[in-house]
Amino acid sequence: MKPWDGIISEEEQRAYRAAGFGRPTGVGKRPALLIIDVQYRTTGTTPLPFFEAIKEFPTSCGDVAWKAVDNIKLLVDEFRQRGWPVLYPHVAPKNKNEGGRLAEKVPAIMNIPAHGYEFVKEIAPQPGDVLLPKKHPSAFFATALTSHLIDLQADTLVITGCSTSGCVRSSVVDAFALNFKVLVPQDAVYDRSRVSHAVNLFDMAEKYADVATTTETLETLRKI
Amino acid sequence: MKPWDGIISEEEQRAYRAAGFGRPTGVGKRPALLIIDVQYRTTGTTPLPFFEAIKEFPTSCGDVAWKAVDNIKLLVDEFRQRGWPVLYPHVAPKNKNEGGRLAEKVPAIMNIPAHGYEFVKEIAPQPGDVLLPKKHPSAFFATALTSHLIDLQADTLVITGCSTSGCVRSSVVDAFALNFKVLVPQDAVYDRSRVSHAVNLFDMAEKYADVATTTETLETLRKI
Amino acid sequence: MKPWDGIISEEEQRAYRAAGFGRPTGVGKRPALLIIDVQYRTTGTTPLPFFEAIKEFPTSCGDVAWKAVDNIKLLVDEFRQRGWPVLYPHVAPKNKNEGGRLAEKVPAIMNIPAHGYEFVKEIAPQPGDVLLPKKHPSAFFATALTSHLIDLQADTLVITGCSTSGCVRSSVVDAFALNFKVLVPQDAVYDRSRVSHAVNLFDMAEKYADVATTTETLETLRKI
Amino acid sequence: MKPWDGIISEEEQRAYRAAGFGRPTGVGKRPALLIIDVQYRTTGTTPLPFFEAIKEFPTSCGDVAWKAVDNIKLLVDEFRQRGWPVLYPHVAPKNKNEGGRLAEKVPAIMNIPAHGYEFVKEIAPQPGDVLLPKKHPSAFFATALTSHLIDLQADTLVITGCSTSGCVRSSVVDAFALNFKVLVPQDAVYDRSRVSHAVNLFDMAEKYADVATTTETLETLRKI
Repeated sequence: MKPWDGIISEEEQRAYRAAGFGRPTGVGKRPALLIIDVQYRTTGTTPLPFFEAIKEFPTSCGDVAWKAVDNIKLLVDEFRQRGWPVLYPHVAPKNKNEGGRLAEKVPAIMNIPAHGYEFVKEIAPQPGDVLLPKKHPSAFFATALTSHLIDLQADTLVITGCSTSGCVRSSVVDAFALNFKVLVPQDAVYDRSRVSHAVNLFDMAEKYADVATTTETLETLRKI
Repeated sequence: MKPWDGIISEEEQRAYRAAGFGRPTGVGKRPALLIIDVQYRTTGTTPLPFFEAIKEFPTSCGDVAWKAVDNIKLLVDEFRQRGWPVLYPHVAPKNKNEGGRLAEKVPAIMNIPAHGYEFVKEIAPQPGDVLLPKKHPSAFFATALTSHLIDLQADTLVITGCSTSGCVRSSVVDAFALNFKVLVPQDAVYDRSRVSHAVNLFDMAEKYADVATTTETLETLRKI
Repeated sequence: MKPWDGIISEEEQRAYRAAGFGRPTGVGKRPALLIIDVQYRTTGTTPLPFFEAIKEFPTSCGDVAWKAVDNIKLLVDEFRQRGWPVLYPHVAPKNKNEGGRLAEKVPAIMNIPAHGYEFVKEIAPQPGDVLLPKKHPSAFFATALTSHLIDLQADTLVITGCSTSGCVRSSVVDAFALNFKVLVPQDAVYDRSRVSHAVNLFDMAEKYADVATTTETLETLRKI
Repeated sequence: MKPWDGIISEEEQRAYRAAGFGRPTGVGKRPALLIIDVQYRTTGTTPLPFFEAIKEFPTSCGDVAWKAVDNIKLLVDEFRQRGWPVLYPHVAPKNKNEGGRLAEKVPAIMNIPAHGYEFVKEIAPQPGDVLLPKKHPSAFFATALTSHLIDLQADTLVITGCSTSGCVRSSVVDAFALNFKVLVPQDAVYDRSRVSHAVNLFDMAEKYADVATTTETLETLRKI
C-alpha cells in the first residue's frame, strides 16, 4: 500500500508502468542525511491539530509533523552510529528587503517569531554538523550544499523534513539533477495537505527518487 | 472552478487560506514566454489516447497535449505580435554516457527515436528565438536560461509546455527562487496524469506562481 | 596610462588589439553597486604598510586598501543620492567543518578574530542594504545575489572591493557570464600584490568588463 | 623556477608566504581530466607565431598552444591507461542571439569558421568521453559538468587547455569553490599573453590549486 493509492487511480498508475517510469535508483556507498526545515515554525512547539497549530505559526503543519519527527529520529540515530554525515538545511529568518516573490505569494512567512526558527530539540544538530541557512525552497539554491556533499564525497542522499510539496520536493529534484541517488522515507517527510503530500511522493517515486517507509529505508542503508 | 477542485478537498484548501498561502504575485513589465519540451516525443505526431500514444513514444502524454498546444499557440501569437521574447527549453537527445540517475529511474527515456526531438510544428521556433537544449528537469539547470533572461531584462515568465509535474514544475520553482514573477496558464501545460497535473497546479498556485486559464493570462498580459 | 602599462608589454597589448579583444561593453540603465569584502580583515583597522598590516590580520592588504576605500566612498555616495542599490557580499566567519579546499590552501583564513569581519565604518551598510554572507571567492557562488539583482532589475554592476585577483575577479567573471554589464573602477579595488592587481585588471578589461578610474566611472554613471 | 619568477617580485612572493597563502591541497583518489577548449580555433591548424596565427583564427594563441598539446597528450595517455575519466568542455558555435556581453567585449569571437570548433586531433575525444559544449568562460557555468563529476564520484580535477587567464582560470575557481582538489599542470595550459599566463598561474597556486609541471603532476597521479 503506497501513500498515493486511492488518490492516483489504478489506471494512472498503470499508465506510468506502461510508459516505463518509476524504476529503482538504488543506494550508493556514502550516504548523507538531509533534515530540511524541521524547526518549530513547521511543527509547532507541541503536537496540535492543524487549525490549532497555525495559530502559533502560520507555517505549522500540525500533528503530522511530530509523527515524521519520530521517524527522522530513527534515521538520525542510525547515521550518527555509522559516522555518516547529517546536514541541516533550514529556513533563515527573513529580512524586510529579502522578500522578493516569496513575500508576495506567502506574506505570512515574513513575520515568524524568532523561536520558530529553532531546531526541534529531539533531532537538533550536534557540534560538527553542517548547518545551511536558506531563503528559497531548494536546499541547494544559493547554499553551499553541493560543495559540502562533494567534500564529503556523498553519493546518496536520504532527504527528510518538510514540506513534502515544497522544500523537500525541490531539493529532491535538484539532487536528482546533480546525479545523487535519492531516498525519500515517505513517513519522515510531512506537509499541510494530505493529498499534495501523497501526490508529491508519487511524482518523486516515478521520476526522481526511491520512496519507501523509514523501516524499509533503514533496511536498505544497513546493507551498505 | 479550479483544476484541483474535487481533488484537493475544500477543507485542505481552507487550510492554505487560513495559513496565508496563495496570494497573487502579479505581472511585471517585461514578460518572456517559455515553451518547455513541446516536442513530438511528448505530444505524439498526432493526437491519440494515452495508451495508444505511448506506443509511438513512451514519453508521450496523449491527446491532452494537443489541447495545450492550441492554447500555447494563442500565447505565442500574442508574444510575437508584441515583440516579446519566446524561449524554447527542450530535451536534447541523450548519449549513452549521460544517463546518470535519469537512466536508472526512466530507462525508456534513453532511447527515443530522433524525430521525437523535433519541435511541434504549430508552435515551433522561428529564426531569432532562443533554443536551450537541456538534460535535466528544470529549464534553468545547466543551461544559459538565466543569462538570457538577464540579457532580455525579463521580469515575468509565462511558463508553458510539459510535463506539469516534471519540467514545468521544477522550472517554475527555480524561476520563483530567482525572483521572476511567474504565470502558469493551467490549460497550456500538460501531463500524463490528470491528478498529478491538478495537484502540481495547486502547489504552484499556493506557493510559486499565479495559475489561471490562458484566456485570463492573455487578459493580464494585455494590460502591460 | 593604464595600471598594467609597463607590466603587460606593448607587444602583448598589441596582440590583444589585433585579435579583437577589449571592446567596451558600456553602461545600462539600472546600475547596482557591489562592495565586496571591505571588512577590517582586508584593510586592517588602520592604514599600515603591508608587512605591518598582516600582523593584525594575515588577510590584510595594507595601506592600498584605504586608498580604495576613499574611492568606494565616492561611489557609495553617488549611488545613495540616486537611490540606486548597494549590496555587500562579504566573508562570513568560517566554522571548523566548512574549510574544504580553502582550509588547505590558506589555513590562516580559518582563524580571523571576530572584529576582522566587521564592515569598514566609512562605507558600512545602511538599513535596507542587502548583505550577502559568502564562503567562496565569487559573490554569486552559493549566495542569493542573482535573485536580488533580478528582483532589482539591475542590468549593470559596478564592482568594488577586494581582492582584485580573488573575489573581485571571480565575481566579475560570473557577472559577465550572467550578462550583466560590468564596470570595474580600477582604483576602488585592491590587492596584496601590485602586479597581480594590474594583470587581473588587464584580463578583466580585455575580456569581461569596462575598467576605468573612479572619476571616469562616475562620469559614465552620471549620464544615466 | 616557477613560471611567475621574474614577473611577481621576490618581495611580493614573500608577502604571500608571510600571509600564509599557497599551501598544497594535494591529490585525492578519483581524478578526472578536463581538457578545455583545445580546438583549432585556439591552436590554429598548424603551429605558427602569434601574429601569423591570428590571421587564421583571431582566438588563436599561436605556437605556445602546440607545446601544451604535447603535454596534454601525456596526461590523456595516463588517464586512458588508468581508466580514469577525460572530459571535454569546449566552446560551442555562437548563434547571433547568444552574444550578450561576450559579443560586446570580443565581437570577433562571434564569427569563427566552423572548422575552428573541431577538436585538435592529437588529443581528441574518444567514444564514451563526456563532451560539454559551453558558451561562457567557466566549464561549470550553464553546463552539466558538476552532475557528471558527481556521477563519476571524482574528487580531484586535473585542468588543462586554454586560455590560462580565461576559461582555465574561471573553471579552476569554480572547481575550488565546489571543493574539488585541483591540479594545474603549468605547461599543459596556454594563453596569448606570457605575462598574464604566468600571473594567473601564480594566483591559482596561491589561492585555488596545486600548480606544477606535467612531469611532476604525472608523478603525483602515479601515487594514487
